[in-house]
Amino acid sequence: MFFVGTGGSVPASGRGLPAILVRRGGDRLLFDCGEGTQRQLMRLGMFGDFDSVFITHFHADHWLGLPGMLKSFALRDREQPLTVYGPSGLRELMEAMRVVVYGRLPFELSVIELEPAGPVRRDGYEIVAVPVDHGDRPAFGYALVEAQRPGEFDPLLAEQLGVAPGPDFGLLQRGETVAGVAPEQVMGPPREGRKVVLSGDTVPCEALRIAAHQADVLVHEATFAAEEAKRAQETSHSTAAQAAELARHAQARLLAITHISSRYSGRELRDEARAVFADTEAPRDFDTIEVPLPERGPARLVPWSGRRTGAHGSERSATSPAAGAETVPSP
Amino acid sequence: MFFVGTGGSVPASGRGLPAILVRRGGDRLLFDCGEGTQRQLMRLGMFGDFDSVFITHFHADHWLGLPGMLKSFALRDREQPLTVYGPSGLRELMEAMRVVVYGRLPFELSVIELEPAGPVRRDGYEIVAVPVDHGDRPAFGYALVEAQRPGEFDPLLAEQLGVAPGPDFGLLQRGETVAGVAPEQVMGPPREGRKVVLSGDTVPCEALRIAAHQADVLVHEATFAAEEAKRAQETSHSTAAQAAELARHAQARLLAITHISSRYSGRELRDEARAVFADTEAPRDFDTIEVPLPERGPARLVPWSGRRTGAHGSERSATSPAAGAETVPSP
Repeated sequence: MFFVGTGGSVPASGRGLPAILVRRGGDRLLFDCGEGTQRQLMRLGMFGDFDSVFITHFHADHWLGLPGMLKSFALRDREQPLTVYGPSGLRELMEAMRVVVYGRLPFELSVIELEPAGPVRRDGYEIVAVPVDHGDRPAFGYALVEAQRPGEFDPLLAEQLGVAPGPDFGLLQRGETVAGVAPEQVMGPPREGRKVVLSGDTVPCEALRIAAHQADVLVHEATFAAEEAKRAQETSHSTAAQAAELARHAQARLLAITHISSRYSGRELRDEARAVFADTEAPRDFDTIEVPLPERGPARLVPWSGRRTGAHGSERSATSPAAGAETVPSP
Repeated sequence: MFFVGTGGSVPASGRGLPAILVRRGGDRLLFDCGEGTQRQLMRLGMFGDFDSVFITHFHADHWLGLPGMLKSFALRDREQPLTVYGPSGLRELMEAMRVVVYGRLPFELSVIELEPAGPVRRDGYEIVAVPVDHGDRPAFGYALVEAQRPGEFDPLLAEQLGVAPGPDFGLLQRGETVAGVAPEQVMGPPREGRKVVLSGDTVPCEALRIAAHQADVLVHEATFAAEEAKRAQETSHSTAAQAAELARHAQARLLAITHISSRYSGRELRDEARAVFADTEAPRDFDTIEVPLPERGPARLVPWSGRRTGAHGSERSATSPAAGAETVPSP
């Protein structure tokens, strides 16, 4: 999970507007696409590297990067089809942007309005639209839920029961009975797949808490600190502590807070969240979170290797910037 | 003149989409506003620091940063009025963006469609819309032309003619006759103001050549190298050599090429242009060009102090990056 832009509402010098790229096997999915996302993706070397875009809601900071990106795809002669998913109203918005921005495209663009709880099924997993609460208009979070995987195969036990190693092992693992031995005799219980849940913009929300139950990663907006709780409520956003509270109730395994207001560095929000839910990270732009299969350990934040430690006081390990990299001015 | 974004059509890792901020005395004018301009301006510490935006034409790379910026101004409670100027069609475009992006604003927004050659008069200078040739729809370059300044006052001569130093010197310089001495007796010929001309996107264009006559700086698009001359013609753009040819014919004093296609580093285009017109620069994002009054010397490029020399091979002098600055990944 690549954090392409971790700011909210207004970009900051150090944080782009919302966008998260999820990579699973050969699949690439983009969640939200704030202004400037195409350039952030270029910097990550991942421009155009996805077939689906999921928009959470229609505040401009979450989608205004999409029309320009479609135009750039056209200028670069993209041929790979692209599907844009989002709440009701997406078609009208995209039609307006087609007229003034991107016009005719050389690739197939599908625009799909999802129903609340509507799933998008893909090979081995699905993406579920979670209705969240962000003011008057429909807004979604998204849950990426992998299908159950078969239980663990016990080759020693299979041999003891008289099955010879080789093709018969494969048949058993694919669910067929071999030489009177049934798969369930030599396979453990089905194993859960991974679950990653993204909140979009929302006040703390029951539907999201349910969706995030035991998620490997919950990415939750944390626009404000606790001292701005009133303002968070008024603007239908969450505080860092509220995000942490929700992660705790949902028994999420890792909380990643994002949509950080430009008034914060992110660290103070992370600390507020950690006081409630210890396993909290506040990724910065270009950081990633790796989500291994559950038996291979917990999800973890991997800071972006191009960032150097500086006066902002990051305690992260630093590596040399890429040769020829440019610095950006401090705010 | 601050080069906020020097790329064209598609952003590159090292070049944002078109935007140039011109500062004159207390005035700040923004020319074009590609996607990502608001964040570039933040990095320059100049976000919101202007009262006028001039759009050259309606290809998305030249204006798509504007609606999100207006929204950001609203979120930050801007009160200072803002005027957006551009060719015919601007009102319709802004209305469409108002509906889907920025809604009601807490400051006064004026949208003014300029006639070709239509001037915008300001204190001591004017901005003239120059009709250029960039395909079917209207497109402008802009010429910033200062009013003539009074000639140089000769205090020694004034004293010789019997005028006492003091308030009478001021009266003479403001054009009044004092003690029988007329201003023209002690003032040199009127002095030209400065002239800066921006091409917008265009094929080489006669109206622009005329407008750029003896300009202190001509900022001209140079989207392509000479080997892509055919493509430049097809897409109504210019090559670097064509920009230089025009600068030479116009007797411009300095040519700054911009709108560099992402396929180029900029250096090869600059070299092609210099072969035709030696006084050519290819500014990079965040560079500035200072334009002193003519008697104080020629305009000159000031490389951005935050850039370090790196493997891209810039020969420019380097200073330390600002404390805490972050690096951006190389493409």
